Amino acid sequence: MNTEIHIPERILLGAGPSAAHPSVLAELARPTIGHLDPALFPVNDAIKKLLRYVFQSDDSLALPIPGTGTAAMEAAIANLVEPGEKILIGVNGFFGMRLAEIAKRYSANVETVNQEWGLPILPEHIELGLKNNPDTKVVALVHAETSTGVLSPIQDICKVVHQKNIPIIVDSVTSLGGEKLLTADWDIDFCYGATQKCLGATPGLGPVNLRARALEKLYSRKTPIATFYLDLLTVHKYWDAERMYHHTSPVNNLFSLLRALQLVKEEGIENRWLRHKKNAFALRKGLDVLGIKSFASQEYELNTLISVIIPDNVDDMKFRNQLYDQFNIEISGGLGDVKGKIWRIGLMGYSSRHENIVKLLNALETLLITNGNLKNKVNAVKYSEEAFSN
Amino acid sequence: MNTEIHIPERILLGAGPSAAHPSVLAELARPTIGHLDPALFPVNDAIKKLLRYVFQSDDSLALPIPGTGTAAMEAAIANLVEPGEKILIGVNGFFGMRLAEIAKRYSANVETVNQEWGLPILPEHIELGLKNNPDTKVVALVHAETSTGVLSPIQDICKVVHQKNIPIIVDSVTSLGGEKLLTADWDIDFCYGATQKCLGATPGLGPVNLRARALEKLYSRKTPIATFYLDLLTVHKYWDAERMYHHTSPVNNLFSLLRALQLVKEEGIENRWLRHKKNAFALRKGLDVLGIKSFASQEYELNTLISVIIPDNVDDMKFRNQLYDQFNIEISGGLGDVKGKIWRIGLMGYSSRHENIVKLLNALETLLITNGNLKNKVNAVKYSEEAFSN
Repeated sequence: MNTEIHIPERILLGAGPSAAHPSVLAELARPTIGHLDPALFPVNDAIKKLLRYVFQSDDSLALPIPGTGTAAMEAAIANLVEPGEKILIGVNGFFGMRLAEIAKRYSANVETVNQEWGLPILPEHIELGLKNNPDTKVVALVHAETSTGVLSPIQDICKVVHQKNIPIIVDSVTSLGGEKLLTADWDIDFCYGATQKCLGATPGLGPVNLRARALEKLYSRKTPIATFYLDLLTVHKYWDAERMYHHTSPVNNLFSLLRALQLVKEEGIENRWLRHKKNAFALRKGLDVLGIKSFASQEYELNTLISVIIPDNVDDMKFRNQLYDQFNIEISGGLGDVKGKIWRIGLMGYSSRHENIVKLLNALETLLITNGNLKNKVNAVKYSEEAFSN
Repeated sequence: MNTEIHIPERILLGAGPSAAHPSVLAELARPTIGHLDPALFPVNDAIKKLLRYVFQSDDSLALPIPGTGTAAMEAAIANLVEPGEKILIGVNGFFGMRLAEIAKRYSANVETVNQEWGLPILPEHIELGLKNNPDTKVVALVHAETSTGVLSPIQDICKVVHQKNIPIIVDSVTSLGGEKLLTADWDIDFCYGATQKCLGATPGLGPVNLRARALEKLYSRKTPIATFYLDLLTVHKYWDAERMYHHTSPVNNLFSLLRALQLVKEEGIENRWLRHKKNAFALRKGLDVLGIKSFASQEYELNTLISVIIPDNVDDMKFRNQLYDQFNIEISGGLGDVKGKIWRIGLMGYSSRHENIVKLLNALETLLITNGNLKNKVNAVKYSEEAFSN
């Protein structure tokens, strides 16, 4: 059982992956069965049903793409946008930029609505973008921007987009299972996520959910889909009654995803959102006391991923390596423009737990003092605990 | 630990997935660490090194694509062929056809060399194809055709292709780790495989190996790569010293792949090829006695996947369901044109074991007698055992 390489156990409080529950890990190790074995079909059907639950969707096409969240993002663009069609993309961080890059590769006519990193995309931005681009066929943006910790108000943005009766693609990689997300009520047409964040499974699958407007766009395509692997017109035939071979489904990851989704159902999705909210609030109380300030615009901060400005005179890499080496804790640095300027602290899925907040605040306080960035003990944990008891 | 759905343990003797060794499964359940955690990098580096070993390659770019073998196939086409370029594809089964379909989606100018299913692609076929298509920029074909159980003589085909100094793409999904494959000696430029067959890991990753001619073609592209997820120009930066974020690597699958590759190394690749050969020979002896005839052309039969003609008066689906229900054994049916006509029996990786051959032959004999297809006991296992002792 030894890989001859020392692999430590970590407390995963970065931008993802988060920790998976022991029972979710155990399911990964279940002996593989065939992807066309009739005994697997009830597993697949249960996954589809539970995905609709976590997306809070109605009678939709829901399935896990056999790749990571980035594969799910590419699937959204590849399936819903035809070459030459105009797509309007809200860009307020690294993953909005990635949406635009992928759309360009798929020969879309890409227009962007840009917001400063740390701020949300608002309905009026999209409204103006659509006014300036009346030939827009699809809108896409990120619900919870993983690079900045910012939530954009998707519900109101959907209303604006649907005045034009065109579909909207929403990236819920860092919100699915952790932030309020009502795919049916808010009328999101194509929503995609990832398994290794708030759903509490391991990385490797990208859940997608397509509702009527998205399916209509997909089925009325005039051009073939450029990718075979992510072609939902054929992938879905494996997940439907047809059970048609498309690729060898990553069966062990499916076993594990099923268990993770069952845990979401057992907890209840609203309870889960509330847990993420309470824990984020408590962590922020402690960070305040440590003098660590939020990066994200206050009204639009995520509960799943807390972005903070790296305190003055703190060496980003050295500090995060100390967290790894002395405390076995992972937090993430910044991506792209904010590399070296911010940290991203994830409280997602099974990682979003009281004990992890205590461990992190104690570690941060200890290191800030040891490194000379903080003069005296401030007992950040105490203030965090008070937030819990309120 | 209960998924509320009964999932049986199977003996996996189909076209894949094969069984993973218990220690390979155990590694899947190791607690996840971050994809950018410095503690993961030795794992990644060990995987790259061991992949070069199983490919029997030299100083090449070797890494696992974060998707199944089909994703690796798409990566080969997407990265090595530019829109409008001519690709010559050898087609003698379902996966040759798939190569052609993917190349068409990526706007290649596709020419095929077609052979009847059950027969190999031979050097003279490719030679003639190249003569008729002097503007060919890339050749692609399948080493071990999973749909027919046929091996094509890649070594000699490489020689023909390289007379033109163009790269060859070779699909080794059903040969990598089970059939003799010498990427460097045979001078294969882009070789790809899958983890869930002869490498004995679970499905979800697609190892690729690019040597100089392939890298040169990749780096001299004039057009961008249409897919972002499978773009090796950026994916490789995560696997190199740069450790640049591209996607959230499926870390648990990497732990598990590392263990599977270590097992290949411990056994020795030549010993592994020999084990697959001996076991295939023994199974064929038993099948002969049962009157079950080979489908693949005799000289070009695979040792990893034995294709046989379904005996007269045997109901394909009913029989395979009996194997599932009464013996927990999986074998595969035919794909495409040979659906209902052939069975595909896999002896791959950890599934390629003496005890599995005994179980399968006994099950086949019992069912053929019970169903009235065989009059008397023939003791197929005995003949198989004799083959072992020779």
